[in-house]
Amino acid sequence: MTRWTLPPGDIPSAWFNVAPHLPSPLQPPLHPATRDPLGPDDLAPLFPAAVIEQEMTQAPWIDVPGEVLDVLRLWRPTPLVRATGLEQALGTRARIYFKDESGSPAGSHKPNTAVAQAFYNAREGIRRLTTETGAGQWGAALAFACAQFDLKCMVYMVRASFEQKPYRRILMETWGGSVVPSPVDQPDHPGSLGTAISDAVRDAAGRDDTHYALGSVLNHVLLHQTLIGLEARQQLSLAGETLPDVVIAPCGGGSNLGGLSLPFVPDAGVRLVAVEPLSCPTLTQGRFDYDFGDTAGYTPLLPMYTLGHDFVPPSIHAGGLRYHGDSPLISALVRDGRMEAVAYPQGKVFEAAVQFARIEGRVAAPEAAHAIRAVIDEALAAEETGDEKVILFNYCGHGLLDLSAYDAYLQGQLPDERG
Amino acid sequence: MTRWTLPPGDIPSAWFNVAPHLPSPLQPPLHPATRDPLGPDDLAPLFPAAVIEQEMTQAPWIDVPGEVLDVLRLWRPTPLVRATGLEQALGTRARIYFKDESGSPAGSHKPNTAVAQAFYNAREGIRRLTTETGAGQWGAALAFACAQFDLKCMVYMVRASFEQKPYRRILMETWGGSVVPSPVDQPDHPGSLGTAISDAVRDAAGRDDTHYALGSVLNHVLLHQTLIGLEARQQLSLAGETLPDVVIAPCGGGSNLGGLSLPFVPDAGVRLVAVEPLSCPTLTQGRFDYDFGDTAGYTPLLPMYTLGHDFVPPSIHAGGLRYHGDSPLISALVRDGRMEAVAYPQGKVFEAAVQFARIEGRVAAPEAAHAIRAVIDEALAAEETGDEKVILFNYCGHGLLDLSAYDAYLQGQLPDERG
Repeated sequence: MTRWTLPPGDIPSAWFNVAPHLPSPLQPPLHPATRDPLGPDDLAPLFPAAVIEQEMTQAPWIDVPGEVLDVLRLWRPTPLVRATGLEQALGTRARIYFKDESGSPAGSHKPNTAVAQAFYNAREGIRRLTTETGAGQWGAALAFACAQFDLKCMVYMVRASFEQKPYRRILMETWGGSVVPSPVDQPDHPGSLGTAISDAVRDAAGRDDTHYALGSVLNHVLLHQTLIGLEARQQLSLAGETLPDVVIAPCGGGSNLGGLSLPFVPDAGVRLVAVEPLSCPTLTQGRFDYDFGDTAGYTPLLPMYTLGHDFVPPSIHAGGLRYHGDSPLISALVRDGRMEAVAYPQGKVFEAAVQFARIEGRVAAPEAAHAIRAVIDEALAAEETGDEKVILFNYCGHGLLDLSAYDAYLQGQLPDERG
Repeated sequence: MTRWTLPPGDIPSAWFNVAPHLPSPLQPPLHPATRDPLGPDDLAPLFPAAVIEQEMTQAPWIDVPGEVLDVLRLWRPTPLVRATGLEQALGTRARIYFKDESGSPAGSHKPNTAVAQAFYNAREGIRRLTTETGAGQWGAALAFACAQFDLKCMVYMVRASFEQKPYRRILMETWGGSVVPSPVDQPDHPGSLGTAISDAVRDAAGRDDTHYALGSVLNHVLLHQTLIGLEARQQLSLAGETLPDVVIAPCGGGSNLGGLSLPFVPDAGVRLVAVEPLSCPTLTQGRFDYDFGDTAGYTPLLPMYTLGHDFVPPSIHAGGLRYHGDSPLISALVRDGRMEAVAYPQGKVFEAAVQFARIEGRVAAPEAAHAIRAVIDEALAAEETGDEKVILFNYCGHGLLDLSAYDAYLQGQLPDERG
């Protein structure tokens, strides 16, 4: 194991915009009622002007405000780690690196965009943000960020998680956030990300002092996450590597995958791989189409791979990555052949997570464990062909608040879904 | 906020032994039956020879084996962080630094000694280690360390925690450890650290392939933790400071306090402060005497501050730091006036923890929160006298597996103990 750190002054000073580098231009989002292409004014009730601009710009680089950097320095730059223990255990000549995003206050990559969004909203005089959360990774990140900029934070949490997973609720409340179960008007409904987005958007649209913040999917969210890939590039160079052969990351809405991989889109020789759960196989089994981001149809229609906006993953599924749709940027890269996608059943994912924990010490979030599964298989496959591959993956969060899923796996209660 | 990191190659290569620097020589431990001073042979059934040597040596420096450094590099050197947000919120001219030990796989400083102990035992051909754990911080650290050296790990966990706090049990099992509730022979007893030590020592004494590992109190444990203070010294110098004016750390058995503060014992101008909970006030209200380390009286008699080996802290107490005794090294420093001790009620401790979380983002372990409370009060007191103090404290672990205590505090169910 070796780590490459960078001093706090070395956070990249600009985000990387992949828009000018796409194989084909992104299709615009459409108004949910008229189905006309969306303009900036349509988004103004929900988002600050700077974020709307970032959502649509073709500018290649966007400066990171100093106030955002000041907060990111609480944990960034994050380390790049070489998983030499895993390499030895696999008997592979592949060199396996991961970007460790688990050291943020919220324990995942999510605060990278939460901080930026909270800053832009506070600067525009907004006093309160609403959002949705599933297991709580994103809600916790936003609650943390809101505390940094003196904003109130209202989190609509999928009811099943709210009732079964109190720890991330407490975390959000410790940072001063308010958390309510969703859907708010159907107390018997277990909820889904789609219902929680509907609740959060409706709340924000109805109050002048309130905006809405989304933790994945949209272009500006992936933009804010590109610090991950930009830092990784710099650190790989410190480690003596030129470019990775393969970049691997888990994919739910696409933000951690985009964050690590988008800065490598212009490097034609670098393979980009999205890993998703077989129980929510958006990229591998969904269709590419315009669809709503939420269940109730309040959001714009986005051009993306989707399983249908009324899709609910089977309750047996323990991890995150449960979203019915996917980032339009990621969807376009997959459709145009610039990015690959694979899906794994959760039993195989947790098998890899436990192997990684015993070798490398770190207990991965279920999301990150999807990447670890794919990395192990990629390394073993490279060994068969004799390739000396450089593999880079996103360790997007720790699993310390997901231990009940590990318990279920260790007790044999987490069977593989059908393939 | 600013952080000072060191490259993985800069872990100190030797541990600092405080024994030659004590104001008066340490009294020897006594045999529990004969009350004669203990010799190395008395400890051989429980500990490897290298550890017994370290327990008794006067050598000023002890080399850290390369195999131990290799594992420590998974997360060490740990960052030194300046809490500028807290300084501003307090309006103090004090400069507040903390050593962040929360980034280890187990989330605390405990693996620093767990790794060393697992290594020495494995090198001697031991195949299995037993230990006790309360809330699970130490048991998790040892389970992680055993996985690194292919040792079996058997953890006797205080029954009340085993039943009420499943997360750290799952963490230990994820690393391959076995966990059973203690006391093993009294299924209705809620258990204590004292009963769990009795169970673990009895198990180890009865099997040739098995040794026992203790997570605090003993000299070799504090020795292994001195990397914390040695790194902090180096990093303070990078930050432009000469020496801290005050070093503050929480104290249960004394290992994180010793780890940070012992390397500063020879610096006469540096104040050293132990912070303990008012509900388990060993240093502030205990007596200095020989006492057993466990409830059943299997362990040697140690010269230390103690509340009596049958002491059980009130069940209302939410945090760690529940041990009836204290490290003989720490006890001697307090008795001889080289170290101060203060005690706080838990309501005041969690008030400081929530303030710290909202300002600095980090959710502290209840143990670390004791230090934060004392740091805030120290900074405010310095402000009244106009001193520009440099305060260094040990952020010895995160509280992500202690969120139920935060919940109790936020719900108003964590009243102060009587003063």
